[in-house]
Amino acid sequence: MNKAYLMVPGPTAVPERVLQATHRPLVNHRGALYEEMFSRITAGLKTVFRTRQDVLVFPAAGTGMLEAAVVNTLSPGDKVLAVSIGVFGDRFAEIAARFGADVEVMAFPWGRAAEPERVAERVAADKDHRIKAILVTHNETSTGVVNDLAALAKARGDHPALLIVDAVSSLGAADLATDDWRLDVVVTGSQKALMTPPGLGFMAMSERAWTANAQSTMPKFYWDAQAAKKAAAKGQNPYTPAVSLLFGLEEALKMLAEEGLDNSIIRHKRLAEALRAGFKALGLKLLAEDAAASPGVTAVFPPDGVEAKKIQKVMRERFGITLAGGQKQLENKIFRVGHLGYVVETDILVTLAALEITLSLLGANVELGSAVKAAGQVIAEG
Amino acid sequence: MNKAYLMVPGPTAVPERVLQATHRPLVNHRGALYEEMFSRITAGLKTVFRTRQDVLVFPAAGTGMLEAAVVNTLSPGDKVLAVSIGVFGDRFAEIAARFGADVEVMAFPWGRAAEPERVAERVAADKDHRIKAILVTHNETSTGVVNDLAALAKARGDHPALLIVDAVSSLGAADLATDDWRLDVVVTGSQKALMTPPGLGFMAMSERAWTANAQSTMPKFYWDAQAAKKAAAKGQNPYTPAVSLLFGLEEALKMLAEEGLDNSIIRHKRLAEALRAGFKALGLKLLAEDAAASPGVTAVFPPDGVEAKKIQKVMRERFGITLAGGQKQLENKIFRVGHLGYVVETDILVTLAALEITLSLLGANVELGSAVKAAGQVIAEG
Repeated sequence: MNKAYLMVPGPTAVPERVLQATHRPLVNHRGALYEEMFSRITAGLKTVFRTRQDVLVFPAAGTGMLEAAVVNTLSPGDKVLAVSIGVFGDRFAEIAARFGADVEVMAFPWGRAAEPERVAERVAADKDHRIKAILVTHNETSTGVVNDLAALAKARGDHPALLIVDAVSSLGAADLATDDWRLDVVVTGSQKALMTPPGLGFMAMSERAWTANAQSTMPKFYWDAQAAKKAAAKGQNPYTPAVSLLFGLEEALKMLAEEGLDNSIIRHKRLAEALRAGFKALGLKLLAEDAAASPGVTAVFPPDGVEAKKIQKVMRERFGITLAGGQKQLENKIFRVGHLGYVVETDILVTLAALEITLSLLGANVELGSAVKAAGQVIAEG
Repeated sequence: MNKAYLMVPGPTAVPERVLQATHRPLVNHRGALYEEMFSRITAGLKTVFRTRQDVLVFPAAGTGMLEAAVVNTLSPGDKVLAVSIGVFGDRFAEIAARFGADVEVMAFPWGRAAEPERVAERVAADKDHRIKAILVTHNETSTGVVNDLAALAKARGDHPALLIVDAVSSLGAADLATDDWRLDVVVTGSQKALMTPPGLGFMAMSERAWTANAQSTMPKFYWDAQAAKKAAAKGQNPYTPAVSLLFGLEEALKMLAEEGLDNSIIRHKRLAEALRAGFKALGLKLLAEDAAASPGVTAVFPPDGVEAKKIQKVMRERFGITLAGGQKQLENKIFRVGHLGYVVETDILVTLAALEITLSLLGANVELGSAVKAAGQVIAEG
């Protein structure tokens, strides 16, 4: 027997309070009760997005929201600069290309953050303003790297390109100020730092993004932001909303408000630091350098001679702790620990303690207790 | 105090067993437990769709699935015959037009079913096979009319056009045989007869639809059927699935299997008959004639001098029974009773009993007990 720890970067563990809320009987999504709830939810989302603009809600996975961001602001043939630092940056570029954008990918090595200077240079070179949008992943889940989004936003300077941000695995876990940083489109999902089961997607658009939307000719119906905005003004949705997930989301937003958005961001940062200290104490190499370390997911190389998938298997079968593997060219090269959303200090400690034993069982030279000690020191200082 | 009855045509009331299932802690959607569950679910869906083809699953509202059906099989400029008998038929046509199809709408008066002869004539006149697809709504929720889908399928005859079916409010409630009737694309959602909270969409495609898919150039990424099919072969999804809704769906599919798909269809038909008998006993006019009566939703004209919205208000506030109103040109002209999914004889009886009192309170000349008596006779015969 063991207890389940879902230490993957989403869908993340969901608090019992939120699960309880999803369990409520359905209500009419065209009735007053729903409309009041939906209005409270969109108000709560505005706080989390740090925006005065509407936050639109769709029944969708995060990838659907990447598509929504693209098709709502661009037209076929538009030049797009896609800044990619991993799997999800590549996906964003691919979506824009699929809908006919002229995509230029600026790729950085996996495990590194994007360099704002490079973006600034590229944008400065675009004197006739051909670039209509810059696609950026805030937190790259595949490598455990967080981009310096404020710096990337500054790098755009006065260039009129829209800044379109995939904040799926960052919003609520990493600092993000939609309005203050002049982010034009920000999208995220329910299943990461927002502590809700997967199936809801969110999108905020700046005034400039709405202007672009009016001219955008990429085809859209389900993702049509205008239809969503019009319905939201009445506390409604253009199509059937995922009501029970919204019940959960309302409770999760309450929990986030109780903790405080700033405190949630600090918590994520400190848990990441504690975890990284633990890995380092075990002599494990981390994919991301400290300065670019994701607050929500950490990618780790196994010790020499130990397979990443074996570590995942023992952690899961012996201790009930589910970790994630590497994606694409990192498959079986790394393992990843998610610490996003409903994650606390004890989760970090138990993960490290179990990992010490796991590595030891797999023949690695490990001093039991050393990782927990290093993490404990970070936690005790906090 | 009252007890809540959600008598709207979706999202419908969800059985406690299904709500309980959605409440389970999240699991890793790339792990063996999930893969086994997802494989069981897709097998169960094949039974409900009556198809040997894959049934693909998306986090989406029903409208998203209409979009998925269109963009996966068609190319801009393709000629499409859209058979519309109401709001959702019009929406299907609009989606195809939005993505560049050359749409010819064959509209029938609201409250009437489509005439298969008219479709047969139109198709016969298309000698050079310009029509690439026929869009059909199986059950039109806005009017409470069910199309004779088997006859419409026959009306196509040997014409190579794909038959693309919106079965959002019919599958599980009305007879539908995907393979036997040679339906090429069938889409539905979780929140109707499948008794699961909203947020999941399903799509089955025939071999001919897959061939069309290979040539289709409408842009697609999130809805890309090939990506979904490839992932499903491994018990996975291309993007994060709505795991907790799938927990619920698995339980709902179990319930449907326990009852038997055929019995579910008979139950819906009989409940519709009992309800209609009750309305007729009150002298109320029904929008749909008996032969085209939907098994899942019934549209009713209020008695002279009584406003539809007033009836809805009293039913809701006094008795806790939520009804739906009319849409578009039928707004406040009719009210609609949903009897789709988790609905039983007692729900019909209580709705009629409360309606009798409501109409009486609103000044209509009603004999209390008369509707319940008429419905009771239908039920007793069953």
